[in-house]
Amino acid sequence: MSSTLDRPTASAATTTPEVAAQAAKPPAEPRPHLLGLEGLLSDAEREVSRTVAAFVDAEVRPHVAEWFENAHFPREIMPRLGELGLLGMHLSEQGCPGRSAVEYGLAALELEAGDSGLRTAVSVQGSLAMSAIAKHGSAEQKAQWLPGMAAGRIIGCFGLTEPTAGSDPGSMKTHARRDGAGERADWVLTGAKRWIGLASIADVAVIWAATDEGVRGFLVPTDTPGFTATPIPAKLSMRASVQCDLAFDEVRLPADALLPGARGLSGPFSCLNEARYGISWGVLGAARDSYLEALRYSLERQQFGRPLAGYQLTQKKLADMAVGIEKGWLLALHLGRLKDAGSLAPHQISVGKLDNTRTAIEICREARTVLGGNGITLDHAALRHANNLESVRTYEGTDEVHTLVIGQRITGIPAFR
Amino acid sequence: MSSTLDRPTASAATTTPEVAAQAAKPPAEPRPHLLGLEGLLSDAEREVSRTVAAFVDAEVRPHVAEWFENAHFPREIMPRLGELGLLGMHLSEQGCPGRSAVEYGLAALELEAGDSGLRTAVSVQGSLAMSAIAKHGSAEQKAQWLPGMAAGRIIGCFGLTEPTAGSDPGSMKTHARRDGAGERADWVLTGAKRWIGLASIADVAVIWAATDEGVRGFLVPTDTPGFTATPIPAKLSMRASVQCDLAFDEVRLPADALLPGARGLSGPFSCLNEARYGISWGVLGAARDSYLEALRYSLERQQFGRPLAGYQLTQKKLADMAVGIEKGWLLALHLGRLKDAGSLAPHQISVGKLDNTRTAIEICREARTVLGGNGITLDHAALRHANNLESVRTYEGTDEVHTLVIGQRITGIPAFR
Amino acid sequence: MSSTLDRPTASAATTTPEVAAQAAKPPAEPRPHLLGLEGLLSDAEREVSRTVAAFVDAEVRPHVAEWFENAHFPREIMPRLGELGLLGMHLSEQGCPGRSAVEYGLAALELEAGDSGLRTAVSVQGSLAMSAIAKHGSAEQKAQWLPGMAAGRIIGCFGLTEPTAGSDPGSMKTHARRDGAGERADWVLTGAKRWIGLASIADVAVIWAATDEGVRGFLVPTDTPGFTATPIPAKLSMRASVQCDLAFDEVRLPADALLPGARGLSGPFSCLNEARYGISWGVLGAARDSYLEALRYSLERQQFGRPLAGYQLTQKKLADMAVGIEKGWLLALHLGRLKDAGSLAPHQISVGKLDNTRTAIEICREARTVLGGNGITLDHAALRHANNLESVRTYEGTDEVHTLVIGQRITGIPAFR
Amino acid sequence: MSSTLDRPTASAATTTPEVAAQAAKPPAEPRPHLLGLEGLLSDAEREVSRTVAAFVDAEVRPHVAEWFENAHFPREIMPRLGELGLLGMHLSEQGCPGRSAVEYGLAALELEAGDSGLRTAVSVQGSLAMSAIAKHGSAEQKAQWLPGMAAGRIIGCFGLTEPTAGSDPGSMKTHARRDGAGERADWVLTGAKRWIGLASIADVAVIWAATDEGVRGFLVPTDTPGFTATPIPAKLSMRASVQCDLAFDEVRLPADALLPGARGLSGPFSCLNEARYGISWGVLGAARDSYLEALRYSLERQQFGRPLAGYQLTQKKLADMAVGIEKGWLLALHLGRLKDAGSLAPHQISVGKLDNTRTAIEICREARTVLGGNGITLDHAALRHANNLESVRTYEGTDEVHTLVIGQRITGIPAFR
Repeated sequence: MSSTLDRPTASAATTTPEVAAQAAKPPAEPRPHLLGLEGLLSDAEREVSRTVAAFVDAEVRPHVAEWFENAHFPREIMPRLGELGLLGMHLSEQGCPGRSAVEYGLAALELEAGDSGLRTAVSVQGSLAMSAIAKHGSAEQKAQWLPGMAAGRIIGCFGLTEPTAGSDPGSMKTHARRDGAGERADWVLTGAKRWIGLASIADVAVIWAATDEGVRGFLVPTDTPGFTATPIPAKLSMRASVQCDLAFDEVRLPADALLPGARGLSGPFSCLNEARYGISWGVLGAARDSYLEALRYSLERQQFGRPLAGYQLTQKKLADMAVGIEKGWLLALHLGRLKDAGSLAPHQISVGKLDNTRTAIEICREARTVLGGNGITLDHAALRHANNLESVRTYEGTDEVHTLVIGQRITGIPAFR
Repeated sequence: MSSTLDRPTASAATTTPEVAAQAAKPPAEPRPHLLGLEGLLSDAEREVSRTVAAFVDAEVRPHVAEWFENAHFPREIMPRLGELGLLGMHLSEQGCPGRSAVEYGLAALELEAGDSGLRTAVSVQGSLAMSAIAKHGSAEQKAQWLPGMAAGRIIGCFGLTEPTAGSDPGSMKTHARRDGAGERADWVLTGAKRWIGLASIADVAVIWAATDEGVRGFLVPTDTPGFTATPIPAKLSMRASVQCDLAFDEVRLPADALLPGARGLSGPFSCLNEARYGISWGVLGAARDSYLEALRYSLERQQFGRPLAGYQLTQKKLADMAVGIEKGWLLALHLGRLKDAGSLAPHQISVGKLDNTRTAIEICREARTVLGGNGITLDHAALRHANNLESVRTYEGTDEVHTLVIGQRITGIPAFR
Repeated sequence: MSSTLDRPTASAATTTPEVAAQAAKPPAEPRPHLLGLEGLLSDAEREVSRTVAAFVDAEVRPHVAEWFENAHFPREIMPRLGELGLLGMHLSEQGCPGRSAVEYGLAALELEAGDSGLRTAVSVQGSLAMSAIAKHGSAEQKAQWLPGMAAGRIIGCFGLTEPTAGSDPGSMKTHARRDGAGERADWVLTGAKRWIGLASIADVAVIWAATDEGVRGFLVPTDTPGFTATPIPAKLSMRASVQCDLAFDEVRLPADALLPGARGLSGPFSCLNEARYGISWGVLGAARDSYLEALRYSLERQQFGRPLAGYQLTQKKLADMAVGIEKGWLLALHLGRLKDAGSLAPHQISVGKLDNTRTAIEICREARTVLGGNGITLDHAALRHANNLESVRTYEGTDEVHTLVIGQRITGIPAFR
Repeated sequence: MSSTLDRPTASAATTTPEVAAQAAKPPAEPRPHLLGLEGLLSDAEREVSRTVAAFVDAEVRPHVAEWFENAHFPREIMPRLGELGLLGMHLSEQGCPGRSAVEYGLAALELEAGDSGLRTAVSVQGSLAMSAIAKHGSAEQKAQWLPGMAAGRIIGCFGLTEPTAGSDPGSMKTHARRDGAGERADWVLTGAKRWIGLASIADVAVIWAATDEGVRGFLVPTDTPGFTATPIPAKLSMRASVQCDLAFDEVRLPADALLPGARGLSGPFSCLNEARYGISWGVLGAARDSYLEALRYSLERQQFGRPLAGYQLTQKKLADMAVGIEKGWLLALHLGRLKDAGSLAPHQISVGKLDNTRTAIEICREARTVLGGNGITLDHAALRHANNLESVRTYEGTDEVHTLVIGQRITGIPAFR
């Protein structure tokens, strides 16, 4: 496990007695952060980090390069994530684990240290699909879906984004109409969605559609006639993951497919905020993994008779990376504590999503330069992480959208249009 | 008082009902940060911020532009700072206030929101001169000097830096020799120092000099024959402050001028770390003041029929500034909590000094661009702050020095040479 | 003279045989650029550089720090600039020197290597006031004013910017009305201008005002009753220069004060483009001067037993500065060649003004960090230059304005509002 | 063809009459640069751009995404490149085309607008392998290899970099020993190389090895026993290209395999400089292609009822990209003119390689953000280009190596170690 930002735990080639002593420590023991951040966590929180990191070390790291190269999402990992209590982790309905927001964040970080696609799968299942049901569903809907989803037996997805409007869900074209009168009339769903994570392997889709009553959400079993999910091919980012184009060709749904508790865009937006919160933590995992890889490489790689790590230009890169990660961690933790206290506001989530993601992507890119030519292969993680974060930077709100959310909060003036 | 990062409290020209409602609030009431950071402080801590901010609003802001233009340090402010308990604030010896590191940091922030020169004066007096005596002085020395210094009746300075070696105190040329044998023999001090804050108005100087026993510290009354302090003229930075060239021409000192507790460079370095810690907080005050000024200006200034604050390019600047300040604040608070817990390590202080200072300088520069042409006069604070921070960035360790301190901590390899 | 970007010609303390050999060369001999840029100039062009550089070395460098500290513009330098043929340099009317745009640019660069205030004075006189007369004046107006202005006996200024609208001259409030009927009726001018360079020492002001016929320009002798010019005090930028607030209190002007050739904002804009072109070159002088100062200092200043210039972190700064300057120079030269060929378009000038100014300001700031603490005094030029460029960055169009000019050119869509 | 930096030639959805008029122009007609750079080229030079761009449009663009996805280098393209005169283009020996350095650069730009892997193949064949033979080979060697290589019938590669030392060829471990005495004795080659472009499909390899006489070069037919070339798998960069690990297991070579004209590292370095020069141009093609793609996308993609291109935040991105490309182009052209004049120095090539590559990579990354989520697939080029440039940034000298080359030139002090 590699939860440190300080010195790497396992360095084949070490250069000073201090580092050598360091390296002799058992690699599984977590090392302190540069800023002693572990001290801000409870034992239970640290245990979450340790458990998820051990899982990632054992079941993700050995395979993730291959998954990425082959554009393969390992569906069989979902029940394992369920066993670990990582699906719908922060929900408390219907057998969900009911962990804190901070614990959820720490888990997201360790998962994304493996691969952003893995953390994204957990976000889609837990923060989007399950949270939509938990927040907006009927008691029957919760009972029907949440236990299986928490266990990873049932996979969910969440359809909001449309092909022609990524950052502007207000222009939604997918629509649902009642076929008949009365509360028990069927709904008929028509339209398309894009960039829907997990959809082609999902059992159930939460689909948001325009109706005569405004935007409403529907639970759509993916074997419903007229529903198709097609994985988007030829990605350069999050290849160890699935995002799909969805098409709804007169998809007929019973009346009880409707999520009763959500009306208007605030319904899906409340779920997006859950996911954005998780991103604030998750991206730091990609950054930390890239940083530690660069640090280890720079200690091992000799140039002009010295390890790369001994050069001023390399130390500046490493120091800036480490500082960036630790500051991002302080921000994420602060947001998590606010969330657990029930006072986290949407513009505060925007700060975390925006700033931690752009910080993380810079760190991954800088880490890659330390790796030299070897850094362009999947033997090293930094470029994979950097590429993955291109997706993360875009989904759940681009830099521009979150910048203008914050700008509006600061100035009182919306400048989106 | 203007301790907010959210919306400005007093905006003459407002543009939306929400902002208007905002502006109607009594300006003296502190506003929440963007990230609700006040919630991380105790009532006593918030009270420190309020008190110092009120003092700065009343006694600094109305005059600081004039002081800066005229290169004048208002000596009479020192007893006022003493009354407020801001001198040697975090020391507990001999009638010092004994406040926490966090409280000291919050005070530093509010002082530097006035002017970096003011915060620097407090740092020189409290973190350098008084802390040298408190850490390394005899009981007699403490009793003789600290009460008067805490009250601001006696002004101290701290002489370490030399003209030819800013970041390399190991090459110290100032030296002190015993004139005679035995413990009671006089010392004779020869050499020069540069960039010594407050020296020309100080009553006592803590001077570090090479001796046969390594580097030692001396308490030198500034009226001792052979001691001269000459203010450095024609500064573009920290003009409302004093930095001097010192010359020691066979300055004869009694045996008890020696600080008994300090041997080697660790003596002055322990004081520098106190000052650096304060800088980590202080610079955020300059940044916040610049940001709030830019925010107010952008809300009032019309361009093409809209307030500047309504443009995307302006909102991006403001959002980035606000996020930078709040992240720096989280970092400073974390360091303060560590310091109060007795576990703050020097490389952690380097992180705070390095990163908060460079963040702050960027924010002040960006704020200035929002102010347009008007931003180049002393009617506005941002460029004054930016210029001040050029000094702060350099003293107590440049970016490069702190980067390499962190780099050594990370890699185990020193790369200074 | 120090027109090199390669190695400094006069370095007191040198450290290698190669540098020592370098330093032994006669300091007056210009050194090649890093990229051999001199080869792109004709002998006559190089001679302009040499002449102006020698003038700046002899008559500006020894005094500029004092002028800046005392906020003094040396009016007596104007006739000297006239003698050198630098006033209205690129105009060919009425005894103006008729030099090429490239020669004008090279002169601007060398002048601004002295101080941006000096180059600004030349821009105001030549590119704004004289060019307004040359472009839009009657034969009588040209004959009356241009010879004396070219000689520096008569000083002109140019009043367009208003207090409440820096980047939006379309909202002009200053207006002129006919007092009576017919072509020979007097005009009466009312209103205010701000940031008007040279105005308080000028003999004649070109003032733009709204009239019933649209925006028109007027030649206003500064002793006309009702005309007042008040220097803007307490600047932190361009202190060795004069910018004024102008007030027009029913200023009565004869009919022939009107510039016959200018109607609408295109009149003053054509002059602004002249000035902006000169800025594209000029700012590189401030950058080069800062760079060379940092380079010399880094070769002389020892730290940890080596010159600063021998450290990787310093070399990265120096290399980036040098590359930035040379690329800016290639851009400026390209624009100059286009201008001399008569094909320079306004959006191309925007590229030069925007990018060279922001590059220059970054270089001056970075140079200052190399100078350590000593870099905050007027003994060194980098911070003075950086501060000066805050004005230059703002006047004749901010970064944002020029960015959106270019954006409109690229996309076809105006995004100013 | 899309050689413009100004407005895109073919935009499906346009938004203003001006843009609409633009789009109506025949797409094959080249559009002017933002800065009118075409005017700096001769008709023959423009013709090179046009021809290569047409080739790329017809034979590369339709297939490159598939090549990249499948990690396939289209060997059959080499004879086509030969027909176009692009192999060994700037050499004049033995039927090589003998075009100018500028023409070679313009061709490199257009090729890399297709894919960096394609330009790299041309660099490896022409600037490295053929130029090694042309510069250092015997008349017999030139006659044997160059005509077939110029035609693309014979493919060459160039083996200098070793697995354990990318930027430090002085630590070369591959060695060649004489097996026997005398000038006609065989050589026996042992060792390994890494990151050798084209090697697995090459017919002949130029291999640099340590010998008793210093570093020497050898022409090694790739079917020589003991020579193996293994493509490096699982790349994220330059997948439409081939880089290999080479192993030499007692490879026996006849005496006339030796390149007679090269002794010491200056032999291979002279070839690297050829390649680096080409990179200075080539990377601008990747940048321009990404920029134009982002520009087109932003004009077509609607958000909140307006094209993305109409937003200030988008215009800033586009303007910065365009300016970066044009400045890089001016730099590359300047280097090309110097090269054609025979006066291009190695440190000047370092400026071009370093700065244009880092500029290009920033532009490609920024372009990707404009593309939103769609930008992560191979339907769009920007992320592919950005990933490709990770290789280009590293090979032929990292940023750090070239920074320190320039630093040494500026300061006279080497700081590599």
